[in-house]
Amino acid sequence: MIRPPLVRIEVFAVGRELLIGRTLNTNAHWIGRRLALMGTMIRQMSTVDDDLGEISRGITTTLSRKPDFVVVLGGLGPTPDDMTLKGIALGLGRRIVQNRRAISLIREHYAKMGLADIELTAARKKMAMLPSGSTPLPNEVGTAPGVRLVVPGSVLFCLPGVPSEMRSIFRKSVEPEIRKSVGELFRRAITLKFEGVYESAMAPLIQKELVRNPGTYIKSHPRGVRKGISRIELDIVAVSAGKGDADRIALGIARTMIESVKVAGGQLKSAVGLN
Amino acid sequence: MIRPPLVRIEVFAVGRELLIGRTLNTNAHWIGRRLALMGTMIRQMSTVDDDLGEISRGITTTLSRKPDFVVVLGGLGPTPDDMTLKGIALGLGRRIVQNRRAISLIREHYAKMGLADIELTAARKKMAMLPSGSTPLPNEVGTAPGVRLVVPGSVLFCLPGVPSEMRSIFRKSVEPEIRKSVGELFRRAITLKFEGVYESAMAPLIQKELVRNPGTYIKSHPRGVRKGISRIELDIVAVSAGKGDADRIALGIARTMIESVKVAGGQLKSAVGLN
Repeated sequence: MIRPPLVRIEVFAVGRELLIGRTLNTNAHWIGRRLALMGTMIRQMSTVDDDLGEISRGITTTLSRKPDFVVVLGGLGPTPDDMTLKGIALGLGRRIVQNRRAISLIREHYAKMGLADIELTAARKKMAMLPSGSTPLPNEVGTAPGVRLVVPGSVLFCLPGVPSEMRSIFRKSVEPEIRKSVGELFRRAITLKFEGVYESAMAPLIQKELVRNPGTYIKSHPRGVRKGISRIELDIVAVSAGKGDADRIALGIARTMIESVKVAGGQLKSAVGLN
Repeated sequence: MIRPPLVRIEVFAVGRELLIGRTLNTNAHWIGRRLALMGTMIRQMSTVDDDLGEISRGITTTLSRKPDFVVVLGGLGPTPDDMTLKGIALGLGRRIVQNRRAISLIREHYAKMGLADIELTAARKKMAMLPSGSTPLPNEVGTAPGVRLVVPGSVLFCLPGVPSEMRSIFRKSVEPEIRKSVGELFRRAITLKFEGVYESAMAPLIQKELVRNPGTYIKSHPRGVRKGISRIELDIVAVSAGKGDADRIALGIARTMIESVKVAGGQLKSAVGLN
């Protein structure tokens, strides 16, 4: 990055399955990648248990950092462990109220599935119980609507934990708003795979490039030693407002690193994004 | 769980690769599973960028929740983006000092690799710069030692982000201390896979079991609708201090749920942990 992103985006995930090694948080990973491709990034991620106290304290702490956007993940469904919206309402000091538009969206969803006559039980109506002031976001692939909620200084988006539903609502209702706020940025990412060089030998080379190109992202990932040969992946990312600048900077760093590593006795094995 | 865990454990991960969709946090996932098998769990996870301000503010916030243990992941290596220990020292108001024992561990590691004469450059010595009061933890599979650090009310363990190194130090130096603090607990986990029942129909059945068995964990995971048939996984976990109690409770809930879902028109397709 040429500079740290000006827009602060946080992800706040709810679900014990993420804390007990049952489920990998592929949702946050997917969102992280989408935002990175836009030239911005998630600045912090938090994951809490399905517990009203943990959710309400957690969201309060998250909002205290004054993020522009918070993407809340999981816990919008009909079951009793789905308590994200109640926890958020608690944290914000808002009431939880039945949202008429959300009820319509739920009815429409059931009708689309050929279940127009299904009884809206308490469990089904629960998915329309939103913090006061919320706007429900249509869910084209599942029942529970997403939620958009504006609080002083931040916009919260609450999305279901089911990946297909999360992605659908994110693409349609979240990404356009974030993109507008971030503006058009150009990004160039290069990954170089080296062999025969230790990370500790690479450190001063990276340092030199970081000093020369402040604000860029240059990070090494050691991939172990195989048959006595050390392997390292190097990520280089530059973001710029002007077209061409990110390309020029990232390519310049990549070329210098390839040369310097060669001098240090290592060699480039492969590259992604170099051309 | 029969009751929420008495020991509060948090994971604090550092690394932009986790925020930009480059790397899934399999380390936290692995630790979550290890702790769950002990009958306890991660209560909260946080992930921050490779940035001194983010790390120092993040660890301060984490410690303000008074966790018994914090497992810090990543950013212990020789490169300039590895700044976890500096950030933590900043957050704690401690100095960062060269640790003599850590220097020995690093020398021993190089000697073991046949590099006894390698120069301890600034980058290599950096891995021995620890917050004052730290105890280095031997790393049997990599260079950077882990770190144990006691602050009022909490014990911090800082582990490298390379999975093999993290696991090795966790098993040897972290797990025994947490296990001692948690005590011996018995855990029974059952997963039931149902078809032909909607989550919204399952919700009241789960609610009934939660009321009957307070403190147990019963959670449904919708796995989509295929050919018009809804599929749901149900996790049941009970933890007890007395041997046999967790088994009895989890099995009781499982049997009731299988019956209730059958009455509701669904059926059990498969089960894990039922026998």
